[in-house]
Amino acid sequence: MKNSDIENLVSENIIIGRNPIIEALKNGREMTKILLAKDAEGSVRKITGIAKDRGIPVQYADRGALDRAAGGGNHQGAVAYVSEFEYCEVEDILIKAEEKGEPAFIIVLDGIEDPHNLGAIMRSADGAGAHGVIIPKRRAAAVTAVAEKASAGAAEYVAVARVTNIGQTIDMLKENGVWTAAVDMDGDAFYSSDLKGPIAIVIGSEGRGIGRLVKEKCDFCVSIPMKGGVNSLNASNAAAVLMYEVVRQRAVN
Amino acid sequence: MKNSDIENLVSENIIIGRNPIIEALKNGREMTKILLAKDAEGSVRKITGIAKDRGIPVQYADRGALDRAAGGGNHQGAVAYVSEFEYCEVEDILIKAEEKGEPAFIIVLDGIEDPHNLGAIMRSADGAGAHGVIIPKRRAAAVTAVAEKASAGAAEYVAVARVTNIGQTIDMLKENGVWTAAVDMDGDAFYSSDLKGPIAIVIGSEGRGIGRLVKEKCDFCVSIPMKGGVNSLNASNAAAVLMYEVVRQRAVN
Repeated sequence: MKNSDIENLVSENIIIGRNPIIEALKNGREMTKILLAKDAEGSVRKITGIAKDRGIPVQYADRGALDRAAGGGNHQGAVAYVSEFEYCEVEDILIKAEEKGEPAFIIVLDGIEDPHNLGAIMRSADGAGAHGVIIPKRRAAAVTAVAEKASAGAAEYVAVARVTNIGQTIDMLKENGVWTAAVDMDGDAFYSSDLKGPIAIVIGSEGRGIGRLVKEKCDFCVSIPMKGGVNSLNASNAAAVLMYEVVRQRAVN
Repeated sequence: MKNSDIENLVSENIIIGRNPIIEALKNGREMTKILLAKDAEGSVRKITGIAKDRGIPVQYADRGALDRAAGGGNHQGAVAYVSEFEYCEVEDILIKAEEKGEPAFIIVLDGIEDPHNLGAIMRSADGAGAHGVIIPKRRAAAVTAVAEKASAGAAEYVAVARVTNIGQTIDMLKENGVWTAAVDMDGDAFYSSDLKGPIAIVIGSEGRGIGRLVKEKCDFCVSIPMKGGVNSLNASNAAAVLMYEVVRQRAVN
């Protein structure tokens, strides 16, 4: 196995940390093996309990072996080997909204590069009841072990579609009656915009913001007022503010 | 110099990364020296320009030396040696609100441990126009180089007070007419609570939430509705949602 293969394995096929593994188990995620630190105590018992019920093999190893398996990540004495994250199609997200009888509520990430940000956004998307998250296949963080851990278990609940071209996806969403709102410096303040109908919130990358072509395709821009010295929020914080504005508007109207 | 001293130096007395250094320079932060990678191009010219104007010595070194100076952090070819972050007093935050003629708007962090979360919260606090952030001296992230970098420059603008006892600080805020709102699972949804008056938003730690004694001291609880499988947001995302609800309520009323 080449080094790059091992890295891929570490980043795509494992879940590290106790709570992410417990959430994954609760959701019936397929696991081939769970590695626990010999000296681990406390909540690992929950893991061994569910693993036993589900017939998933548990192995005990020293911390060094777990460190290597986790690729340096903070594993808290627990590493699970799983099948790769299962992405969905954009259509699945639209169907999910329809089945729930709710106006579509979608997050489009135009190039989020930090897997911690991606994980935090997935967590907020789950919390806000969004129907799915759309990410590009290239030049963006995928749902790796780091992102899953940062999602605090939300990766087990949130539908994520990975697409080749965000611009074409926005066209497709618009054809399906979904309004697309670019979160940017222009545009009305987020609370002055109507976000009650079917909506896709488009968030740009950490460094460059939203691509020009993608922004031009969006129906309108919404801005987060910046009252201090810096000119933007952390991408996951910006996403959370917008997602919960959707929640608020739909609750109070 | 002992190893622990070097670590302290790395975490407290340097700023790493181009934009954080540029923001610090723009704000007149005292620097003793700036270390640049020999092969660095682009925005480092902005750094050398301001440094020249301000008479701050610039040294060029190879990437290895910068890696060591940055303690493994992502320095983008630039490391600045600064005086320690200057904390303020809680009174300074109240005075700032008074001087601006605004109802106090304060963020109290009851034990945020991840410096990335602290930095992101400082960034959102700056964006939302909060008058200051209060953190505990013990068992919590301080404003280290990592937090400053995550703040994307906001550490230069946001007042941060570090206190011995969060409970006593809440008492003091209440005596000064500030309402204290604990963000927790109980309580009304954040958008149903009146946040227009003088307010301190109290956010718990990543793992344990808000301490029981601190929560009991708060005037009321506000919750962020969780509609999916996970039961809380990332701490910085939760803080951003609440802060921008304050912004919204004060703007529209």
